[in-house]
Amino acid sequence: MNLVRDLCLKESLRGSTVCFMDVDEERLNIIHGLARRFAEEVGADIRFEKTLTRKEAMLDSDFVINTAMVGGHNIEEEERRIEESCGYYRGLRLGMYLHQLKLMLSVARDIEDACPDTWLIQASNPVFDGCTLMTRQTKAKIVGLCHGHYGAYEVARVIGIDSEEVTFQAPGLNHCIWMTHFHHRGEDAYPLIDKWVKEKAEEYWRTWDGRPMDVQMSPAAVSLYNMFGLFPIGDTPRFAGAWWHHVDLESKKRWYNKYGGFDSELGWSYYLNGLSRQVDNMSQLYRDSSAQVSKEFPPTMSREEHIPIIDALVNDNEGKYQVNVPNKGALLGFGDDVVVEVPGIVSGRGVEAVQVDGLPKHLTNHILRTHIVPMEMGLEAFLTGDRRILLNRILSDPRTKSYEQAVNVMDAVMNIPFNEDLKELFR
Amino acid sequence: MNLVRDLCLKESLRGSTVCFMDVDEERLNIIHGLARRFAEEVGADIRFEKTLTRKEAMLDSDFVINTAMVGGHNIEEEERRIEESCGYYRGLRLGMYLHQLKLMLSVARDIEDACPDTWLIQASNPVFDGCTLMTRQTKAKIVGLCHGHYGAYEVARVIGIDSEEVTFQAPGLNHCIWMTHFHHRGEDAYPLIDKWVKEKAEEYWRTWDGRPMDVQMSPAAVSLYNMFGLFPIGDTPRFAGAWWHHVDLESKKRWYNKYGGFDSELGWSYYLNGLSRQVDNMSQLYRDSSAQVSKEFPPTMSREEHIPIIDALVNDNEGKYQVNVPNKGALLGFGDDVVVEVPGIVSGRGVEAVQVDGLPKHLTNHILRTHIVPMEMGLEAFLTGDRRILLNRILSDPRTKSYEQAVNVMDAVMNIPFNEDLKELFR
Repeated sequence: MNLVRDLCLKESLRGSTVCFMDVDEERLNIIHGLARRFAEEVGADIRFEKTLTRKEAMLDSDFVINTAMVGGHNIEEEERRIEESCGYYRGLRLGMYLHQLKLMLSVARDIEDACPDTWLIQASNPVFDGCTLMTRQTKAKIVGLCHGHYGAYEVARVIGIDSEEVTFQAPGLNHCIWMTHFHHRGEDAYPLIDKWVKEKAEEYWRTWDGRPMDVQMSPAAVSLYNMFGLFPIGDTPRFAGAWWHHVDLESKKRWYNKYGGFDSELGWSYYLNGLSRQVDNMSQLYRDSSAQVSKEFPPTMSREEHIPIIDALVNDNEGKYQVNVPNKGALLGFGDDVVVEVPGIVSGRGVEAVQVDGLPKHLTNHILRTHIVPMEMGLEAFLTGDRRILLNRILSDPRTKSYEQAVNVMDAVMNIPFNEDLKELFR
Repeated sequence: MNLVRDLCLKESLRGSTVCFMDVDEERLNIIHGLARRFAEEVGADIRFEKTLTRKEAMLDSDFVINTAMVGGHNIEEEERRIEESCGYYRGLRLGMYLHQLKLMLSVARDIEDACPDTWLIQASNPVFDGCTLMTRQTKAKIVGLCHGHYGAYEVARVIGIDSEEVTFQAPGLNHCIWMTHFHHRGEDAYPLIDKWVKEKAEEYWRTWDGRPMDVQMSPAAVSLYNMFGLFPIGDTPRFAGAWWHHVDLESKKRWYNKYGGFDSELGWSYYLNGLSRQVDNMSQLYRDSSAQVSKEFPPTMSREEHIPIIDALVNDNEGKYQVNVPNKGALLGFGDDVVVEVPGIVSGRGVEAVQVDGLPKHLTNHILRTHIVPMEMGLEAFLTGDRRILLNRILSDPRTKSYEQAVNVMDAVMNIPFNEDLKELFR
């Protein structure tokens, strides 16, 4: 609905046609119905179509936005339970990972086939692994998006400066981005972070009363800042490869917040319950044809970059965005064919990555170990169906205590009925 | 004594002068005395000198051979005990590692200063980390040597083919080399390994009755071969980054041999006892001036490459050797300024690395994680004195169970009296 709203509010995109595609007909009908009503209510000239057939949605398209999560959260939770029973606290999400890679690659290949000039905007995760896979294996034009970088404004807010007066740069890999520059009214604002850490952080954490997912200014974030010298932005405090933040609920509570952060059993159920309420609301709204959609979803632009980027590409409306694209030298220390998250100039010319300062050496080496190698092993395992590579990826997980445990969890994941295709792939 | 013998037996090097240098005067006198007597007994025209002052030994030299281990095995064992008490089975050898880097860099800097045209032959460990450090930080001419690659002949012997009819190639990093080619009478001999694994390995292991250090054909080696598709050579089965082979004595016994291999408490005391007996023998031989040194050390060439390489360099006696030199593209997948172990042509022109096939992708990625990143963090920690980098290196060790454990072991190592200089460096 964020994308629907943004699109309907973007004057320069009026006259566009959107074709929703989903494998779930009920869900498809809901979003299609709500989008149509919203457009009508706000007087937007956007045509909404729907289909259960992916290639049909792609034909004659200029853009494809992939927001899909194979199996959804129920399957994810089933897998997590099984992985937890093998001794992996909060699971590996191994099957989910492989299903997502498979879906993404097949979407990109369909685009190559059906509409090679189309831009693919990859919104669902894993953006880092998936975009690297797709850009290596296909010729599709791909950009991955995430809103995590806005976390820099949360930093500003918490340390008490006006986020409108702040500029920043936070390159890296998706979910692993680090603030190399942070300016307030043209001056380096890192000293203000240091001052906050020294004088205010303890009190902030003691009196904190936010949502589980608010981890931008958590002890984990500050400890990563202390270790690497740059502040981790957005989802980075969750995914920085600091395994000691994630040993159990107790350590998660210590490093994130009283819920143990976004990814603990408490944080994640909060998130799932919120999602579920939202889906219920939309479903109710869909059935109540007399209700005003634009009342439930007020007509204001979200901060998502998808629609502005479409506008930039199609109308040559040049702007700077945070994009995930193949590195090609934009971020020193990482391979040219690894998808990095960097600022990019988006315009009628396409997406042009901005060459940024490299990350500190220590951090780059850390990320090689915690992100690049697991990604490389994940992609190679997926592309070859070689169990040994998948097994080594699991053996590299700090939670793995024995060779047998790794074999067991791999077998257990493959034996989940939903993962039959994966079992076949890794036979 | 191996080097003394090789040198005395090499006709083309007669007339050479050797200056021994040691910080331990007694040890210095012993090797100096024995070398002189050996040369006299076999009629070799080699002049042996000695000094306690390093730079004095270097002046006017053509070659420096560094075989030093700072502190020796007693210090190593003291450190190991302390690291074991922090929960690291068989220790980290963190202080030893840093002392060795410090010594190596200071030797290379002295060479730059005192005798810039001298070749430094690095024999003591860590060859990989140390040679990478020295070649990055100085302009000294450096080659690292190790005899591990001869393990390929042990493979031949055990699977029942004549090692004299075998050729092989085993590139990688020092202590992490993998047999990319293995030929017997010009034919690929890998099928013979496969046959041995299938038909003979179990019996070989069941009836095995060798020394603890004989791990070339151990279950660990075969399991690494199964995982990566290339046979690990020499010290590689010990150091391939497969932590699950090293969890405790029981797992070491399962994966290596009934002693738990070279690096278990059993294997290592066997090794230390052997060394100690050897030193005692040499000491006795030194004091008994009537004994024949060449009886105890028969005049046959060892298989060490040091002296033949000196001969090749100084007499343009071209030959192929296994060398450790900066990569510069010789082995695909590793940085140009990382020291790799590859075949090299050694001659009056110097040491020319042979461009070899890269290792399989899965293996290269594995090594990035288990060898390259720890080396990079080790060197950066050493060069900057940044505790955070050293800490992250320890946190990356699969044995580390908590952040506190890593901090504790680091502090405990720094507090060993012998490590006072390291404590100062990492203050």
